[in-house]
Amino acid sequence: MIYFQAAYHRRLIHCWALVVEMIKVGIVGGTGYTGVELLRLLASHEKAEVVAITSRSEAGISVAELFPNLRGYYDQLRYSEPDVEVLSSCDVVFFATPHGVAMAMMPELVARGVRVVDLSADFRIKDTDLWAQWYGMPHSCPDIVAQAVYGLPEQNRAEIVNAQVVAAPGCYPTAVQLGFMPLLQHGLVDTSRLIANAASGVSGAGRQGKIDNLFAEVGDSFKSYAVPGHRHLPEIEQGLSRMTNEAVQLTFVPHLLPMIRGIHATLYAELNVDKCDLQQLFEEAYRDEAFVDVMPAGSHPQTRSVKGANMCRIAIHQPQGRNTVVVLSVIDNLVKGASGQAIQIMNIMFGLDEREGLKGLGLIP
Amino acid sequence: MIYFQAAYHRRLIHCWALVVEMIKVGIVGGTGYTGVELLRLLASHEKAEVVAITSRSEAGISVAELFPNLRGYYDQLRYSEPDVEVLSSCDVVFFATPHGVAMAMMPELVARGVRVVDLSADFRIKDTDLWAQWYGMPHSCPDIVAQAVYGLPEQNRAEIVNAQVVAAPGCYPTAVQLGFMPLLQHGLVDTSRLIANAASGVSGAGRQGKIDNLFAEVGDSFKSYAVPGHRHLPEIEQGLSRMTNEAVQLTFVPHLLPMIRGIHATLYAELNVDKCDLQQLFEEAYRDEAFVDVMPAGSHPQTRSVKGANMCRIAIHQPQGRNTVVVLSVIDNLVKGASGQAIQIMNIMFGLDEREGLKGLGLIP
Amino acid sequence: MIYFQAAYHRRLIHCWALVVEMIKVGIVGGTGYTGVELLRLLASHEKAEVVAITSRSEAGISVAELFPNLRGYYDQLRYSEPDVEVLSSCDVVFFATPHGVAMAMMPELVARGVRVVDLSADFRIKDTDLWAQWYGMPHSCPDIVAQAVYGLPEQNRAEIVNAQVVAAPGCYPTAVQLGFMPLLQHGLVDTSRLIANAASGVSGAGRQGKIDNLFAEVGDSFKSYAVPGHRHLPEIEQGLSRMTNEAVQLTFVPHLLPMIRGIHATLYAELNVDKCDLQQLFEEAYRDEAFVDVMPAGSHPQTRSVKGANMCRIAIHQPQGRNTVVVLSVIDNLVKGASGQAIQIMNIMFGLDEREGLKGLGLIP
Amino acid sequence: MIYFQAAYHRRLIHCWALVVEMIKVGIVGGTGYTGVELLRLLASHEKAEVVAITSRSEAGISVAELFPNLRGYYDQLRYSEPDVEVLSSCDVVFFATPHGVAMAMMPELVARGVRVVDLSADFRIKDTDLWAQWYGMPHSCPDIVAQAVYGLPEQNRAEIVNAQVVAAPGCYPTAVQLGFMPLLQHGLVDTSRLIANAASGVSGAGRQGKIDNLFAEVGDSFKSYAVPGHRHLPEIEQGLSRMTNEAVQLTFVPHLLPMIRGIHATLYAELNVDKCDLQQLFEEAYRDEAFVDVMPAGSHPQTRSVKGANMCRIAIHQPQGRNTVVVLSVIDNLVKGASGQAIQIMNIMFGLDEREGLKGLGLIP
Repeated sequence: MIYFQAAYHRRLIHCWALVVEMIKVGIVGGTGYTGVELLRLLASHEKAEVVAITSRSEAGISVAELFPNLRGYYDQLRYSEPDVEVLSSCDVVFFATPHGVAMAMMPELVARGVRVVDLSADFRIKDTDLWAQWYGMPHSCPDIVAQAVYGLPEQNRAEIVNAQVVAAPGCYPTAVQLGFMPLLQHGLVDTSRLIANAASGVSGAGRQGKIDNLFAEVGDSFKSYAVPGHRHLPEIEQGLSRMTNEAVQLTFVPHLLPMIRGIHATLYAELNVDKCDLQQLFEEAYRDEAFVDVMPAGSHPQTRSVKGANMCRIAIHQPQGRNTVVVLSVIDNLVKGASGQAIQIMNIMFGLDEREGLKGLGLIP
Repeated sequence: MIYFQAAYHRRLIHCWALVVEMIKVGIVGGTGYTGVELLRLLASHEKAEVVAITSRSEAGISVAELFPNLRGYYDQLRYSEPDVEVLSSCDVVFFATPHGVAMAMMPELVARGVRVVDLSADFRIKDTDLWAQWYGMPHSCPDIVAQAVYGLPEQNRAEIVNAQVVAAPGCYPTAVQLGFMPLLQHGLVDTSRLIANAASGVSGAGRQGKIDNLFAEVGDSFKSYAVPGHRHLPEIEQGLSRMTNEAVQLTFVPHLLPMIRGIHATLYAELNVDKCDLQQLFEEAYRDEAFVDVMPAGSHPQTRSVKGANMCRIAIHQPQGRNTVVVLSVIDNLVKGASGQAIQIMNIMFGLDEREGLKGLGLIP
Repeated sequence: MIYFQAAYHRRLIHCWALVVEMIKVGIVGGTGYTGVELLRLLASHEKAEVVAITSRSEAGISVAELFPNLRGYYDQLRYSEPDVEVLSSCDVVFFATPHGVAMAMMPELVARGVRVVDLSADFRIKDTDLWAQWYGMPHSCPDIVAQAVYGLPEQNRAEIVNAQVVAAPGCYPTAVQLGFMPLLQHGLVDTSRLIANAASGVSGAGRQGKIDNLFAEVGDSFKSYAVPGHRHLPEIEQGLSRMTNEAVQLTFVPHLLPMIRGIHATLYAELNVDKCDLQQLFEEAYRDEAFVDVMPAGSHPQTRSVKGANMCRIAIHQPQGRNTVVVLSVIDNLVKGASGQAIQIMNIMFGLDEREGLKGLGLIP
Repeated sequence: MIYFQAAYHRRLIHCWALVVEMIKVGIVGGTGYTGVELLRLLASHEKAEVVAITSRSEAGISVAELFPNLRGYYDQLRYSEPDVEVLSSCDVVFFATPHGVAMAMMPELVARGVRVVDLSADFRIKDTDLWAQWYGMPHSCPDIVAQAVYGLPEQNRAEIVNAQVVAAPGCYPTAVQLGFMPLLQHGLVDTSRLIANAASGVSGAGRQGKIDNLFAEVGDSFKSYAVPGHRHLPEIEQGLSRMTNEAVQLTFVPHLLPMIRGIHATLYAELNVDKCDLQQLFEEAYRDEAFVDVMPAGSHPQTRSVKGANMCRIAIHQPQGRNTVVVLSVIDNLVKGASGQAIQIMNIMFGLDEREGLKGLGLIP
C-alpha cells in the first residue's frame, strides 16, 4: 500500500488544481445507498462536481432533504427526472440503479459519447446468456457488454484508462477477487475447489422496504443466504478464471451480518506447491496499490478499519502449517465495494490522481 | 426433531412430579454468563433446585442483585465462598468457571461421590499433553480425565447416564460436531480437509472487562480471530475422529459477530461418493433427538431462531450440484453451547425427561 | 412484586391442572410480532391452546414456516382465512391486527358471546371522536367502545374479570401509566405539565416492509419521532386523568432505539408536597403485583432485564433533592407492552393464576 | 448553518496553503477514542501536522498498529513517553486524557508558553471547590483554571482567539448548551426547572476494559445511569447560567445507547412568553455558524446524520401548542463533542478557516 502522507499529496494536488477544469458528474438513481455514498465522497473531490442526479420517485426533492448528512454541501442539488439530454452534457455518468436500468439507457448515452461507470450488474458478465440466466431477463445490448471494461483497477487499470463504459465490480466480487488474485496469478492453488465464505452488512441489500432487512429481523442474529446460488457467483468465477486462464470452481456462501457496512471474505484454497512465502507474495503484488493494504503476518482485519474508506485490507494465514491457505479480505461494501471504487475508476479514466476524493480514513470506533 | 406438543408433555410431567424429589444443584463460579444462564433455565426446571452458588469475588451478594432478570425467582440465593462441604451435599455440581478451576477441585468432589457437569475445558480433551499445550498449564488430574465422559448427548447419551464426571462440550465444538456427525459416521466425506467457518456472538468471550469485547470495539464490525489456532480445534478434531475412527484434519476459522448470543457454523466437506440423499441422511440421524432440528431442504437457519433455546438447527446444501457439501448449523452458545446442554446432560444423568427445564422457545424477533 | 418461587407455584398449578379444561384460543392477524409472541408465550401455557390463527396473506402456511422458532411446538397449526364461525367456537379471541380491523369484526363476535382481548388501538379511547381524529377514520362501533374495559390489570383488575371485550393497553401507555400511577393516585405532583420521555425498540414499529425501519436506517443511530403528536398521547392522558380525576397535560416524546425489544420511559413530574418517601410509596403500591417490580432505591433498570419477560421494572429518583421527581420504567414492548399483558388479561378473565404462561425470565445477556 | 460549497472553499484554501507554515501538534494520551479521533481528523487538516503523541503504556508502538484505520497515514508516528521538552516544541498540545492528568502537566507547559486545548474536564469548571467535589480530588492549579477559556466557540469565540489554555466542553454539555442557548440568551424560559434528557453512544465511556461497557452488557438494551448526579451537571449549569446571568436548575438524566457514536439531547423548558417564533429565533442565532445546523420546522434529527462529522443538528418543537418547548440536539460525541471541537478551537486560536480539517460529512447509512 502506498503511503498517504498528507503533506506530500497536498502539494501535488494544489498545482494540478489550478489548471484542470472540474469534471461534470451525472448520477442516475441517486436515492439508494450507493447514490448517497457517491455524493458523500464527491463532496470532498477537488476536481469533480455533481451537476445532475436523477430519480423518478423523488424528482423535485433536494438530496439533502432525503439524506440530511448532505445538508450544507449540496443545498442546490435536487433530484430530477432522468433526461438523456442533461446526462449527455456530463463528462461522466454513474449508474447507481437496480439491474436492468443501465442497459436500457446505455445505447443512447454511448452513442452521444458520454463516458459511463455502471455500479449495477448489467455490464459485468461477458457471457450474456449466463447473465440472462442469473438475472432473469434477456440482455438488451450485448454489443456494449462486449466493449465494456470490468473495472477492478488492481487487475485492469490499463484497460480502464480509455474505456467508454466501465462495469464497476460487485461488492462481494471485489473482496473475493482481490483476496485470491496473487494466488491465482501465480498458479499456486487448486482452482477446482476454491471456497469463499463471505459476510456482508445489511446496506448491501439496498434501501428498499423489505421485511427481511428490517432491524427487528436482522438485529442480534446471523444467517447465510442464497447458498444454492448467488448472482455474484458467475461474476467472481469469470474474474478468477481470467486471472488463471483456466476454469475455476468456487463454492460461495454469503451471510448477512447484523451491521450496516462492511464485507468480510474468508477464503480457502488448497496449495499445490510445497513452500511459498505467501506474505511476501501478497505484499509484492499490492506494493503499488493505494487501496489494497496487506497487513502484517498474523493479522485479522476488522471491517470497521475500512468503514467509510476506499480500502481493501488483506491478511494471509496457513493454519497449523497445513495445506489449506486462508485469506482474509475486508472492504466497505459501499466504498471499495461500490461508490468509492466507481470514483477510483473515474479518476483513472480522467487521468487524475487515483486517490482524489478517496482520502477519508476508516471510522474507529 | 421430536414434537414438543405442550399438552402431551404436561401430563407426563405432572405424574412424575408427585413422586420425584428435587435434585439439589450446586454451581461453582456463577458470576459469568454461563452461570446466570444456568440460573435462568433452572428457574423453570420442575425437578431441580439451586441450593448453592459460589463466587469468591461476589460472596455475600444476592444473585438477583448482580443479574436483575433473576429478581423474583432467586431472592434468597446468595453467592458464597466455594466450600467442598456444601458442594458435596449437592446431587450435582456444575462448574461454570475458567479453565483450571474445575480440575483443582475435582479430586475432592469425586472422592466424595458428587456427580459433576463441567462446563469448562478441563476434562474435554483425553490427551492431557495436548491439553497442556493448548491451555498453557499442566493437567493436574489425568486419571479423572480418563474416566470423564464427553457430554455430547446426541453422540454419547449412553455413556452419560452413569458417568460421574461429564465434560460438557464447548460452544463451537457442539455446533461443528452436530453438523458433521452424520457425514462422518457414514464415511461420506474426505476427512483430510474439512473446513469449519464459524462465527460467535460476543457473550462467548465471557463476562470480563477486556477492551477487545467493548461495545465500541465489537459493534458494527466483524473480524476473524485466532486463525493460527483456537483452543476448540483439538477438541473438535478429537470428536470428529471418534465419529469416523480415523484422523481428521480440520481448518477452523472463528469469527466475532456484533451480536450477543448465537453461533453459526458453515461447514465445508468434499463428498467421496457420487450420489447420496443428504437431506434424508440428516433427518434420519436426528429423528429421535429433541434438540437437533433438521430444517427442510433449501433452508438457511438463523441464529435468532434458537436465541435462548436449547436447540441446534441444521440445513444441508450442495451448491451447483458440485462435490462440496455445505452444512449450516446454529445454536445459542450459552444454551445448547453451554448451560442448556449442561442441564440436558444432568437430565440424562438423573433419568429425567431430557427436555425438563429446556422447553423455552427461541426469541423472534 | 410477588415472589416467583418456582417450587411453590408448581404444586398449586398441578392440582388445578387435573380439573380445568383447556381454554381454546383464536388469534386474528398472527403474522406480526405480537402474533408470534402470543404463540411463543402460549406454548408454555398449561391451560390454553391455540386452535385457530388467521391471516389473509399467509392462509395455508404453517406458523412454524414463517417463524422457525416455533418449529416443534406448533407443527400442526396453519394460518387460515378469518372466519367468524371458527373464531366463535373459541373461548377467547386475541386481535393482533393493525387498527381498524378489530372494530370491523367485533360486533359479530360480541353478538355470539365470544370474549375478546384486542391488542390493537380500536377500543382503548373512550372518546370516539378523539379516536377518529388521531386514527384518521370514524369509529364503527362506539357502543362496544363504551362497554369495553381498558385492560391495565394493575389499575383495572376488577373490571377485567367479567368483561367481554378488553382493550389491551399500548406499549408506551403501559410503561408510562405504571410509572406515574402511584404519584397521581396520591395527588403528589403537578398534573398540568407531566413529561414522558420514552424510547422503544424497533419491533414496536411492527413487521412491515418500511424503509424507515430497515437495519441500515435504524442501526447505530438514535432519533425522536412524532414529537408534534403520537397516537399514544390521548390514550395515556385518558389513563392518567382517570387516576387523578382531573385533566392531565403530558408532553410525550417517543424515540427509536437501535435495538429490537424494550421500552424505557423516563418520567418527570414536579412534586407539590414537601416531603414524601417515594420509594416506600411505590413499593406499597405494587406490593401485590406479580408483574411490577419496584427496584431498590438508586437503581437504573435496564430494558434487557425484562427482555422476553412479562414484567415492568421501576425505579424512582429525586435528583439533587430538588423538586423534580424522575421515574424510570422499563418493559418489553412485545410482552408486558402487548402479548404478555394480553395473556395476563386472559388469565384474569378466566380465573386462572395470573402468572400462568408468563413465568419466563428476562434474557441476560 | 453556513453553506459548505466545496468549490468555493477550495479556492480560498489553496491560496492560503502556499504561505502558512504547518502547525506542529502534540497529543497527550493518544490511546483512547478521542486520541484516535484527533488523528483521523488531523490526517485531512491542510495546516497542522501531528509531531508527537504520548502514552506511557504504549510507548514505542506505532499508532497504526493500535488503530489500523490509520495505516497509510501515520506510518512514522509512534507513541512516546510524555516529555515536556518535546511537547514544548509544539505549537499546540491537545490533552486527550482522563481527568487529573492535564492539571498535573499544565503549569510547566503554560510556563513555557505552549498553547493547550484540554479535552478533559480539568479546566472546565471555574469553581474549583465544586470541581473537587464532583471529581473526587483537589484541584492543583486554580490559577490556571481562572485564566482558562471555556471553549464553546458558538458562545465564546472571541475569548478563544487569544487564549493560552482552552477547556474543550464535554460531550453532553456541548449538545445541551447549544440546544438551550438561544432560549436562555433571550430569557424566554423558566430557568428554575430545565430538563435535559440525553442519551449517548458507548464510545463516550472511553476505551477501558470495564464489564459495564462490554458488547454483551450494552447491546440490545437501554438504561439510564447516574441519575442522582452526573459530572457534567455542574459544567452544564455553569454554562447555562452564563447565558442567562442567573442561577439555573437543570434535571439532567443521561442514558446509555446500544450504539457506538452519537449524543441525542431532548431538552424541555417552560416558555414564559406567550408568543415567539422559535424556529426563526434558532435560525438567526446560528445563521453564521458552520457547525450548528438548525433543521426545518418539524424535523427529528438523527445521530447518524452527524456520525463522524463536526456538526450539531437542532430542531425545535412545541407539542400541542402547549407551554413546554422541546429542543432536539444531536452531535457525534467524539467529534463536535470532543476531538472535532478541539480542532475547531485550534483553528480559531491560530486564525485559520474554522472548517479546516472538519469538512467530512456524516456517514449515512
